[in-house]
Amino acid sequence: MKCKKCSSTAVIKLRQHNVSYCEYHFNEYFEKRVEKTIIKYNMCKPEDRILVAVSGGKDSSVLLYVLDKMGYRVDGVFVDMGTVTPPHEELKQLQDLIRGQVYYLDVRDYFLGLTIPEVSKILRRSTCSVCGTARRYILNRYALTAGYNVLAMGHNLDDECAVLLGNVLNWHIGYLSRQKPVLHRTHSGFVKKIKPLVLLTGREIYAYALLNHIPCSKENCPFSKNASSLRYKSGINEVERYHPGTKLRFYTEFVKKSPFEPEKVTIRSCSVCGYPTTEDICAFCRMKARVKNALGK
Amino acid sequence: MKCKKCSSTAVIKLRQHNVSYCEYHFNEYFEKRVEKTIIKYNMCKPEDRILVAVSGGKDSSVLLYVLDKMGYRVDGVFVDMGTVTPPHEELKQLQDLIRGQVYYLDVRDYFLGLTIPEVSKILRRSTCSVCGTARRYILNRYALTAGYNVLAMGHNLDDECAVLLGNVLNWHIGYLSRQKPVLHRTHSGFVKKIKPLVLLTGREIYAYALLNHIPCSKENCPFSKNASSLRYKSGINEVERYHPGTKLRFYTEFVKKSPFEPEKVTIRSCSVCGYPTTEDICAFCRMKARVKNALGK
Repeated sequence: MKCKKCSSTAVIKLRQHNVSYCEYHFNEYFEKRVEKTIIKYNMCKPEDRILVAVSGGKDSSVLLYVLDKMGYRVDGVFVDMGTVTPPHEELKQLQDLIRGQVYYLDVRDYFLGLTIPEVSKILRRSTCSVCGTARRYILNRYALTAGYNVLAMGHNLDDECAVLLGNVLNWHIGYLSRQKPVLHRTHSGFVKKIKPLVLLTGREIYAYALLNHIPCSKENCPFSKNASSLRYKSGINEVERYHPGTKLRFYTEFVKKSPFEPEKVTIRSCSVCGYPTTEDICAFCRMKARVKNALGK
Repeated sequence: MKCKKCSSTAVIKLRQHNVSYCEYHFNEYFEKRVEKTIIKYNMCKPEDRILVAVSGGKDSSVLLYVLDKMGYRVDGVFVDMGTVTPPHEELKQLQDLIRGQVYYLDVRDYFLGLTIPEVSKILRRSTCSVCGTARRYILNRYALTAGYNVLAMGHNLDDECAVLLGNVLNWHIGYLSRQKPVLHRTHSGFVKKIKPLVLLTGREIYAYALLNHIPCSKENCPFSKNASSLRYKSGINEVERYHPGTKLRFYTEFVKKSPFEPEKVTIRSCSVCGYPTTEDICAFCRMKARVKNALGK
């Protein structure tokens, strides 16, 4: 297996593009692809202040590393939700690799001293749903108050395709209308949200992490084990195996042709915290109020 | 495993509905489900003259049998495309089971004495694509000239979901806009087309065929072996296994919520045969002309 660019021994074959690359040219391909995604979807500019939501896993660590390497003004933030052991060692190593900073936040500081598993138990709601609401809120609020105007997430092509397949299998029109590589700022209380790894597969990102010695935690969230998204991933992998390129086409054509229009909603300020919401009180503050109530506080 | 209705020993478990039935109540369920589909999608009425496109396989044979049993005015027609051995014995047995007639047509009578594999070889086009165009044309033309106003096809839920998944993975907006359980008559040269088995899985239809001794050919079309639809089927089966009911929801919600609007096209009469087309000459006549040309006729 030879590199398409220089004919030296290839380290990876990309079936969806029908090419193989050596280490040097794979890195080049990878970084160009991130740049291309950023330009194609108008994600960010050199003058932006970008915050990467870091989980300790390969995707977000690679994202922080690669944006930093490409010269963007970027820092990372890890939010400890109390679901996994915080990857302190990996975050420290990551910090040493980049020019920017890696910050650490604790959900307990935002949520009455409680972790997400504790909150979900009190509210009898699924951990993933509680975690999602809280994480989105904390990240957006932190980015805004710390002066960032772009929040970057490490979602890769496999993730996005699994979510897209799930949304399509259930025809969740509302979710389909909001599934985009960029969520523009529709209210002063929101930062712009971008997903620069959305055209790269988990396998490509893993290879890039290995080749560039990017520290990644191997621990998966124990609550995601039986998530439907794993089924959707294996469903689409079943097709991809015989038709390489299916995922890439599925996602990019969706973004290009999607006829799903977001509902027109009025965004106002939460009467408790002031952050944007479509209701009187935002989802995070409502959740917090229910917990307070349950604990008799 | 007990029947949900009468507690006698069940012969089949339907995971998507989380019920089991004995032979009697499975037959009852099956026939009610066909009736429900017909009413839900406004497919046909007792006074309609219905022609079932019979292939010799389980789906179309069951469709002909069940519509006949339910009291509809129905006949069957088998079109010999030259791709499989015509299932003469099964068609004869099917004829003996029903009140209506089972007719036999030969593609050679419509296509210069040639079979589909011969035509596809001459035109260097895929057999499935040539076969589809010719079969649709012959069935519609025969139904019209023989005085039927409805053409019924045996497509089942698995088929429709595989096609739907393929259309969605490639975002074929045009195909998505036309994938419906009923195609209404948009021109006097078309008959209405219906798919009354569209809410029943291949497994349910197979069980009904076995229990009611409906003769079915076991021969599959040799040209369909590597069809992408098999990959789409196994992709969606991968999800269905863990989430029974996925297929049913995928299809019915699509029909209910589909935002894909068919393009406005002008349908005119083919200047050669007079049948409906969006071009000057219809696809079938164009194909025939190219074959004539290639053969120097």
